[in-house]
Amino acid sequence: MSKTVFTEISPSEFFYRNRDLAGFSNPSRALYSAVRELVENSLDSCELYKILPEIYVRLTPVQIDGENSDPKHYELLVLDNGSGIEAEQIPKAFGRIFYGSKYKLRQARGMFGMGGTMSILYGQITTNKPVEIASSTDGLTFEKFIMMIDIERNTPIVLTREKGAANGWRGTKVKLRLEGDYLRSSSKIQDYFKNTALVTPYANITFIDPNGKVLHYKRGTDIMPEPPRETLPHPHGIDVEAVKRMIRLWKGGPIYKFMIQTFHRVGEKIALDFLKYAGIDPQIEPKSLGNDELVRFTEALHSYDKFLPPDGRCLSPLGEEIFAAGIVKELKPEFYAIAAREPSAYSGFPFIVEVGLAYGGKTIQPGLKLLRFANRIPLLYDEGSDVSWKVVSEEIDLKRYKVQQDAPLTIITHVCSTKVPYKTVGKEYIADRPEVEKELRNGIRDVLRKLQVYLSRVGSIERQRRKMNIYSRYMPLIARFSAALVGTKKLPPYNKLIGLDVFQEGGDEDV
Amino acid sequence: MSKTVFTEISPSEFFYRNRDLAGFSNPSRALYSAVRELVENSLDSCELYKILPEIYVRLTPVQIDGENSDPKHYELLVLDNGSGIEAEQIPKAFGRIFYGSKYKLRQARGMFGMGGTMSILYGQITTNKPVEIASSTDGLTFEKFIMMIDIERNTPIVLTREKGAANGWRGTKVKLRLEGDYLRSSSKIQDYFKNTALVTPYANITFIDPNGKVLHYKRGTDIMPEPPRETLPHPHGIDVEAVKRMIRLWKGGPIYKFMIQTFHRVGEKIALDFLKYAGIDPQIEPKSLGNDELVRFTEALHSYDKFLPPDGRCLSPLGEEIFAAGIVKELKPEFYAIAAREPSAYSGFPFIVEVGLAYGGKTIQPGLKLLRFANRIPLLYDEGSDVSWKVVSEEIDLKRYKVQQDAPLTIITHVCSTKVPYKTVGKEYIADRPEVEKELRNGIRDVLRKLQVYLSRVGSIERQRRKMNIYSRYMPLIARFSAALVGTKKLPPYNKLIGLDVFQEGGDEDV
Repeated sequence: MSKTVFTEISPSEFFYRNRDLAGFSNPSRALYSAVRELVENSLDSCELYKILPEIYVRLTPVQIDGENSDPKHYELLVLDNGSGIEAEQIPKAFGRIFYGSKYKLRQARGMFGMGGTMSILYGQITTNKPVEIASSTDGLTFEKFIMMIDIERNTPIVLTREKGAANGWRGTKVKLRLEGDYLRSSSKIQDYFKNTALVTPYANITFIDPNGKVLHYKRGTDIMPEPPRETLPHPHGIDVEAVKRMIRLWKGGPIYKFMIQTFHRVGEKIALDFLKYAGIDPQIEPKSLGNDELVRFTEALHSYDKFLPPDGRCLSPLGEEIFAAGIVKELKPEFYAIAAREPSAYSGFPFIVEVGLAYGGKTIQPGLKLLRFANRIPLLYDEGSDVSWKVVSEEIDLKRYKVQQDAPLTIITHVCSTKVPYKTVGKEYIADRPEVEKELRNGIRDVLRKLQVYLSRVGSIERQRRKMNIYSRYMPLIARFSAALVGTKKLPPYNKLIGLDVFQEGGDEDV
Repeated sequence: MSKTVFTEISPSEFFYRNRDLAGFSNPSRALYSAVRELVENSLDSCELYKILPEIYVRLTPVQIDGENSDPKHYELLVLDNGSGIEAEQIPKAFGRIFYGSKYKLRQARGMFGMGGTMSILYGQITTNKPVEIASSTDGLTFEKFIMMIDIERNTPIVLTREKGAANGWRGTKVKLRLEGDYLRSSSKIQDYFKNTALVTPYANITFIDPNGKVLHYKRGTDIMPEPPRETLPHPHGIDVEAVKRMIRLWKGGPIYKFMIQTFHRVGEKIALDFLKYAGIDPQIEPKSLGNDELVRFTEALHSYDKFLPPDGRCLSPLGEEIFAAGIVKELKPEFYAIAAREPSAYSGFPFIVEVGLAYGGKTIQPGLKLLRFANRIPLLYDEGSDVSWKVVSEEIDLKRYKVQQDAPLTIITHVCSTKVPYKTVGKEYIADRPEVEKELRNGIRDVLRKLQVYLSRVGSIERQRRKMNIYSRYMPLIARFSAALVGTKKLPPYNKLIGLDVFQEGGDEDV
């Protein structure tokens, strides 16, 4: 019997072979993913430092041998005014899988820290061309790298590196070539920009498409959300491995102090109460705990129910004002409503759900449409597997809110978290964690109730108007009769009465 | 402005943090995934060497502090009679992500080479206990390892290693502890075994559940499919990166010879015709090709349409006989049909679709049920995202085949390929590659047409019987009349006529 042969592959090699996992399945999907991953890196690098984003994206066809049918080679350029990347970090940040700035407990668009590298890797394996990356962190000088990736070794190969004067520009520029199919991905790419503009109304985004058409999404507000902060892990989400690591890093001292300093929202009172619950001496040194004690400690962390819920302040939701600005700017609805839910948590990870609803107007088509967002990323693929879709299609009955099935209605869901429970590296859809599902359900019900109030008011104004129309036909007659009855020639001021009534009904709108 | 901080994480660390990606989201799902991943490794190690599998799986609750509610700790034991693993390979094979035996162009249940390691990693982070692995490759001696994983370094830590007498046992045994929720996963785990038995009727599988109940899936046939063979890459599926690597390994010589020896199903005639099409001198040495020439060469590989399709002989489908044995054994239907499609290919990867249909009988419930398999793995989660579900729910109209909506019907799809286009590392569902979709559609139509023929025959037999019932009531009378008419007392043999007629109609069944 021959031996089973084992081989080791590098992380780059793994994702090179299994690029479907990261959203780079074919030239159409890959073009969309590359645009999106680079734009998201750019937005993250602005928002983290509260810089109003200016993003410029250009997609240019590269003719080879006069052929002009898709799929073909494109040049993708993404330029931002973000914080920039230190020159020393550039090669690894863009040329090494599992090397990145996203591996922390902080809300960010990026979650797996590999989108930029995957885009470059895909460009390389389809066109064999190097990528060009330039960045300035100070606005004085920039450094420019031309590089490729050694996929088998998961390491960057720098071909050239040069310095130049930045002349006030701070930010990052990435230019790469890749095989793409714009014919089949153009609608998704355009939806991506449109929906990004909806939840990022404080950004200026310019997209030059392969035909030279300029799509400009103009800033609608100067208000930016507070940058997300890094947070400590919540005790409910910690496993034995994490406890062991924290103890290894612990400077020494009693376990109750260890808990206060390394866990999210644990004060002295809760720490002592918890240790009593777990049957652990509060003065014990954590490093002295044995294997079984560590397991029991961890299990007690999960079962103790008096820890404070995670604090939503480490998250950066859109907020009603920015969300509303985006909806008004992009959807121009007749009516809109927003439900901003309180912070909640799953497995110790804090999250916030925001739900928007837009109704009527010229741009919203008949029928219910769902727009999904997670940490401000539009999610455009695999709608049917997403928890928001599950809630909308299975748990919400529009009839209960007196809304017609074909009403011109858009529901917008936004889940933000230090860790969005995506089910794929390609970030297409959110798993149906029960806690997330519940918040979405309640949020969607909230906005639908607001719509119901609005519609019934519009309905009653409509009924009132019809009544008034009838009144106005008979009023003069009735007025004349009444005047005759009381023996006067002066008619009562019925016109004014009718007008006033309508005005009072329609005066305030619940938004 | 503070600097953006970059960090590097190991592959183990990545999947530790993002274990949802690999199917280890929570104690219920993780228990299912661990059972499944280890059983699949065991089956692969038998089938690759055409050993009739004997798999023993035991799940035992581990009581801690007298608690007995789920989730709790379980001990999972999986024992097989497969080929065994060389002792030198065991620590890395089970303690290092991206180190495995599945990284080749060969059909196997495992695809990402990380299921075993992920199960052990999950066990460790929830129970902090080491795993025990024993294996024998010769039946004479075995080696046993007790080990853990250093997740931050992606490397195994061997605690003990010992040798013993195997006494004729060859195979592998894995015993680990993990947190699980059997209460919530028992139905999936049992479905998993039942469905595995359906497509692996040549295996003996024993499962002892946490309550001590023995579920025994007995071998129904001794016929085993031919083991899959490793294959060369098909020119349609090769990217520039792959071409570069192949050239690097090329021993030297003209490009037409390079093509014949490194590509799947390329002979001299096709190689020369292709090189003419691509405008490349057949005598050129591949190593002398420049960057742009490599890109043009690769693009020509994709656009040239006279390459032979991938050869299905490198695949190992179930085959009609084994598939039928499984269906009969597990579903006991009134009628079944199988459609074995011809080999096809997507992106240069060969695949074969087999579709089974089972109708009626005592175990099949009313309504259409879909069972999905890929490389003999039952796929039990995320049905709604799978291409088979898409075909069944959107593209097939049962009415066209005169099948009632609530007919007791099970459709079984099996896709086998050197690379199944899964969309997640957890192997839950298959992407809707158009080529795969088409084969599934045609296969499902095939079996439904066979069902239609069967049902119409059953229907006509039914009608015939009813007619015969009426005949048999009036026949004696008619016979007597006829006899009287011709002036005889001997009646014609009408009973025999009726019987013969029915027998002829129902004699042959199209399976």
